[in-house]
Amino acid sequence: MKKYLFTPGPVPVPSEVLIEMAKPIIHHRTAEFESIFAEVREGLKYVYETEQEVFILAASGTGAMEASVANTLSRGDKALVVNGGKFGERWGKICRAYGVEVEELMVEWGKEVDPADIEKALQADPLISAVLVQASETSTGVKHPTKEIAEITGKRDDVILIVDGITGVGVFPLPFDKWGIDVLVGGSQKAFMLPPGLSFAAMSDKAWKFYEKSNLPKFYFDFKTALKNAEKNTTTFTPAVTLIIGLAAVLRRFMAEGRENMHARHAKLALATREAMRAIGVEPFVQDTPSTALTTVIAPPEIGAGKVIASLRDDYGITVAGGQDQAKGKIFRISHIGDIDKTDILSIVAAIESVLDGLGYDFNFGAATKKAAKILSED
Amino acid sequence: MKKYLFTPGPVPVPSEVLIEMAKPIIHHRTAEFESIFAEVREGLKYVYETEQEVFILAASGTGAMEASVANTLSRGDKALVVNGGKFGERWGKICRAYGVEVEELMVEWGKEVDPADIEKALQADPLISAVLVQASETSTGVKHPTKEIAEITGKRDDVILIVDGITGVGVFPLPFDKWGIDVLVGGSQKAFMLPPGLSFAAMSDKAWKFYEKSNLPKFYFDFKTALKNAEKNTTTFTPAVTLIIGLAAVLRRFMAEGRENMHARHAKLALATREAMRAIGVEPFVQDTPSTALTTVIAPPEIGAGKVIASLRDDYGITVAGGQDQAKGKIFRISHIGDIDKTDILSIVAAIESVLDGLGYDFNFGAATKKAAKILSED
Repeated sequence: MKKYLFTPGPVPVPSEVLIEMAKPIIHHRTAEFESIFAEVREGLKYVYETEQEVFILAASGTGAMEASVANTLSRGDKALVVNGGKFGERWGKICRAYGVEVEELMVEWGKEVDPADIEKALQADPLISAVLVQASETSTGVKHPTKEIAEITGKRDDVILIVDGITGVGVFPLPFDKWGIDVLVGGSQKAFMLPPGLSFAAMSDKAWKFYEKSNLPKFYFDFKTALKNAEKNTTTFTPAVTLIIGLAAVLRRFMAEGRENMHARHAKLALATREAMRAIGVEPFVQDTPSTALTTVIAPPEIGAGKVIASLRDDYGITVAGGQDQAKGKIFRISHIGDIDKTDILSIVAAIESVLDGLGYDFNFGAATKKAAKILSED
Repeated sequence: MKKYLFTPGPVPVPSEVLIEMAKPIIHHRTAEFESIFAEVREGLKYVYETEQEVFILAASGTGAMEASVANTLSRGDKALVVNGGKFGERWGKICRAYGVEVEELMVEWGKEVDPADIEKALQADPLISAVLVQASETSTGVKHPTKEIAEITGKRDDVILIVDGITGVGVFPLPFDKWGIDVLVGGSQKAFMLPPGLSFAAMSDKAWKFYEKSNLPKFYFDFKTALKNAEKNTTTFTPAVTLIIGLAAVLRRFMAEGRENMHARHAKLALATREAMRAIGVEPFVQDTPSTALTTVIAPPEIGAGKVIASLRDDYGITVAGGQDQAKGKIFRISHIGDIDKTDILSIVAAIESVLDGLGYDFNFGAATKKAAKILSED
């Protein structure tokens, strides 16, 4: 059976990128690779909207999350972690593993954090020196208000904002310099349309000041040696050569499409999916600020998410993501990142209609697809 | 110009493996991936000659080196580091980054460490709790006596042996269980014939006892959570899916070839190269125990390594590695790992003859190629 991925990583990789990566491998200490690396550095700065270096790690996203903590904080530091899903929870685990004290701001799954709560927490405890949050919390489909949080941390010299943008960067605006984000993490198997194995991170000037005081151990993930080498268009350690070659191909595509159009593409695919589901009574899990990286919906309770996911897989070769922990069996998640276009969205919406029909859900067959088609065809 | 890689990583990747990795990507939380992962786990155990789990990290080799330290040692521990090249030096840097005290056993570049010196150092300082060494020191081409060192550390319950086998595993025998190695690191872009981006590590029962006492921070590289997940044929974090699919293809090839034949293949290619160079007066840098992963030779001093390397690159599209630090300009390194066969060895030897001739070196043209052909054709 032909396979279709609608998961928030891995995502479909464009065939021209797969072919680029299948070419005979080149050595990383050569003029040829250095020129590709220079191109990739520029492309990443374009996507991140920054003049700072964007580091490329041979590690998946969690590696870059850990690197963000290890390069800025110190043992005994206090961090405010926004925990409204599995990835927020992960920030807390990483900090604790490094001896960083964690204050968790618990947020109901499916809701965005209220920036006022962050401001309050910072005022209540002046020892907090970092706020860690997801731009897009992939486990719930929520988009947190990064801009507003950055306005709060921007007023404090002694507090940095570390943002997991793994399913945010390239999907919606997260202008690193303009908003004053201090560390922003990205991952290859998301908007970047690549296989997993690369992750990214940028550091603000304020974050570099934190680096100088940081006493957490780092070697493979050390951003300072990475910076010194990046400026010479090379890496400290052997890079994931093929993935970087794929990245060059993807970034060329991004430059041609343009940053704003990339954001608009994701927004339209997400809107079409969300409204299509609503048109047949399948409610979004996130009411107020859904991430446009993925659409999370509540399966009809009488059917349950498990059966929908299994039928999509078995009958149509489609993989969507289920819910985790408290959302398990309740929700399913349809991703819009990677090499996904409007025809793919018609296909997933039509498949969901067929599956729900087969599972005995009572609805007006065709209403979802019609709604999606209408939104997708609008300029 | 067609390109030929004779570098000790990246190495030529077999085209059938490149094609395997260029297929549409699959999701890692699926039965299909789990079954590939199960196969890969078995294959790695075969190559490592162990019943222990062999962890697969989405990181290049240095990541797994760092993981080996972080999973076993504690702040203030004392480690004995064998430093006879760039990678020995790296063990020291990693330990220091984590607050592990380092005693360096300096070894002349091009020489193997004397196990008696390790025994003496351990006796002189009973606080040393780890010995760190390279099975094959890639910067010099030396093979260190892992078996003999393991016999020494094997007598002590309070000392573990951590071996960087990045250019050793799959190249020559390093039977993990039989020799009593405690941690053994491997890398994808070496004997495993893959692009960089994956690394491996196995832990002995003694190493696991060290894990329980270890207080160094680890999260992305945590072997205990990795073990728990590996037993369910999955990974803690998103794995480098395409590289693991490539690994499955490579391991199938290894199983068909057989462990002993793999070792014999590398040994023969190395012998042919070394003796070919000797036949025209180009002396090996390593006299006594050369690694069979690569052959390091001293360029004729009147010419220098730089010119040989440049002419191979510019006139024949061949990349070999130069010397680093004190060996820079003096030596060049010809790798035998990756998808390299006897025809490749004839080709590199003939190219070196042509290049040396062009650079005015006085020798009996043909003697090297003839010598190589003779050894390569022997059973």
